[in-house]
Amino acid sequence: MLDQERTSPGATVVAPYRYALAVEYAGAAYHGWQKQLKDPVPSVQERLEKALSRIANHPVQVICAGRTDAGVNASYQIIHFDSQVQRDERAWVMGTNSHLPDDIAVHWARPVSSEFHARFSARSRRYRYLIHTSAVKPAILPRGITWTWKTLDLAAMQAAAQALVGEHDFTSYRAVGCQAKNPVRRIEFLEVSRVGRLLMIDVQANAFLHHMVRNIAGVLMRIGAGEAPVGWAAEVLAARDRRAGGVTAPPYGLYFVDVAYDPVFALPKSELGPYFVRAAD
Amino acid sequence: MLDQERTSPGATVVAPYRYALAVEYAGAAYHGWQKQLKDPVPSVQERLEKALSRIANHPVQVICAGRTDAGVNASYQIIHFDSQVQRDERAWVMGTNSHLPDDIAVHWARPVSSEFHARFSARSRRYRYLIHTSAVKPAILPRGITWTWKTLDLAAMQAAAQALVGEHDFTSYRAVGCQAKNPVRRIEFLEVSRVGRLLMIDVQANAFLHHMVRNIAGVLMRIGAGEAPVGWAAEVLAARDRRAGGVTAPPYGLYFVDVAYDPVFALPKSELGPYFVRAAD
Repeated sequence: MLDQERTSPGATVVAPYRYALAVEYAGAAYHGWQKQLKDPVPSVQERLEKALSRIANHPVQVICAGRTDAGVNASYQIIHFDSQVQRDERAWVMGTNSHLPDDIAVHWARPVSSEFHARFSARSRRYRYLIHTSAVKPAILPRGITWTWKTLDLAAMQAAAQALVGEHDFTSYRAVGCQAKNPVRRIEFLEVSRVGRLLMIDVQANAFLHHMVRNIAGVLMRIGAGEAPVGWAAEVLAARDRRAGGVTAPPYGLYFVDVAYDPVFALPKSELGPYFVRAAD
Repeated sequence: MLDQERTSPGATVVAPYRYALAVEYAGAAYHGWQKQLKDPVPSVQERLEKALSRIANHPVQVICAGRTDAGVNASYQIIHFDSQVQRDERAWVMGTNSHLPDDIAVHWARPVSSEFHARFSARSRRYRYLIHTSAVKPAILPRGITWTWKTLDLAAMQAAAQALVGEHDFTSYRAVGCQAKNPVRRIEFLEVSRVGRLLMIDVQANAFLHHMVRNIAGVLMRIGAGEAPVGWAAEVLAARDRRAGGVTAPPYGLYFVDVAYDPVFALPKSELGPYFVRAAD
């Protein structure tokens, strides 16, 4: 047996091996990332833990960089977990994938030091929000894109977005039930561009509040549709009141695409998905 | 009542109104375009006829430009049908869409002369075949793309493809069970290109034999993977024997994207989908 199991009879079980994995998933079929302990519903976490536990031969609990809501997708979600066993990358990737449904895939696995924590070691997260504007709803990837029949003014959205860049109190852009103690976040960039026939909002911040990207998308889409002036994004921000904000845009077009860690952890770079979008940089 | 019904009691029912519609669909959930009379299974045709019949208030039978196999998608499938009632475009598009599942959508509807026939009036059809090459299977759109872990040599595929352009006997590239009497078809162009991170085979012909695009894709992918020389595509063609060919590539990456009719019918031009692919021309 190649795997070394560092447990001995009677000893306290220790889990000396920590692994980091990159995971891609389509959120449409799940009630979000997080496992629900009461009244279980399908979650990405529960599916991953079940598959990883089969490879580890013991129950595995995973922690992710950014918990995504129901319907939200990820092209590069980073998770970590501790295991009592040492397996090679092939086992953690190919082995785990063989136990996962079609809409969840592990892309790579790396042994990391016990200092690494998928959530607390993250220095920044990046999301992309994809919008398809057309007279009729799309039949292809209907739950992997946000659709609107409205025409959106790209320049107006680009101008409005700039007011949100930097460190601000994002109370107006977070969910009413958001449990973060501090509503201040630092948006490093917030760009709106056309990618082929799609419109893409590309945003990076040190961290995000609950619903923050979808609330930003809701405000920018309203401005793009000409239903509010360009200055409205800044007005909403200044109000520091969720009731001043716009609607929460649908989850379908949202993709978690990158997370930055200290280079000391030497994790592979994200290819900036989703893969059908031409990489912008 | 705005709709005019041209039937009178005792008269033979005539269907004087002919309509052409553009339809987009994701094929993953269907056993193909065609309605199965025995042992019914979900088909795109059956779903469309059911929805259109509700708008027409009488049973509707549709005919399409190109019957697609199980799992094959369409961004621009043209259909026609006859109806005893006159409805405006809004009814045929929005009304029908309200009775269709998420993965089928009508894009436009036009009244056409009784000379128009979605299948027999078609002068050419165009398909796109999308391939994603990556070490791990994609979790996003897993049934809307063909995936291979192999690296594909684009230049080799481009060179091999040229041997198939023009009028040829495509016996080696058609399904064994193909029922067309004449195996000669004229490929107008067959281009292989990169579209962002995807590889795309874009092919137009006067008509296609059963499995012809997928059999071409199977041969080109084998050449791209370095498992056969560039000249193999021409050798397979010359053999006029299906046993000389390669595997039939999976249906998931195949999209029916365009069909050309005489300009006299004045149908809207295809936007060349699928929409998430940047239009090549």
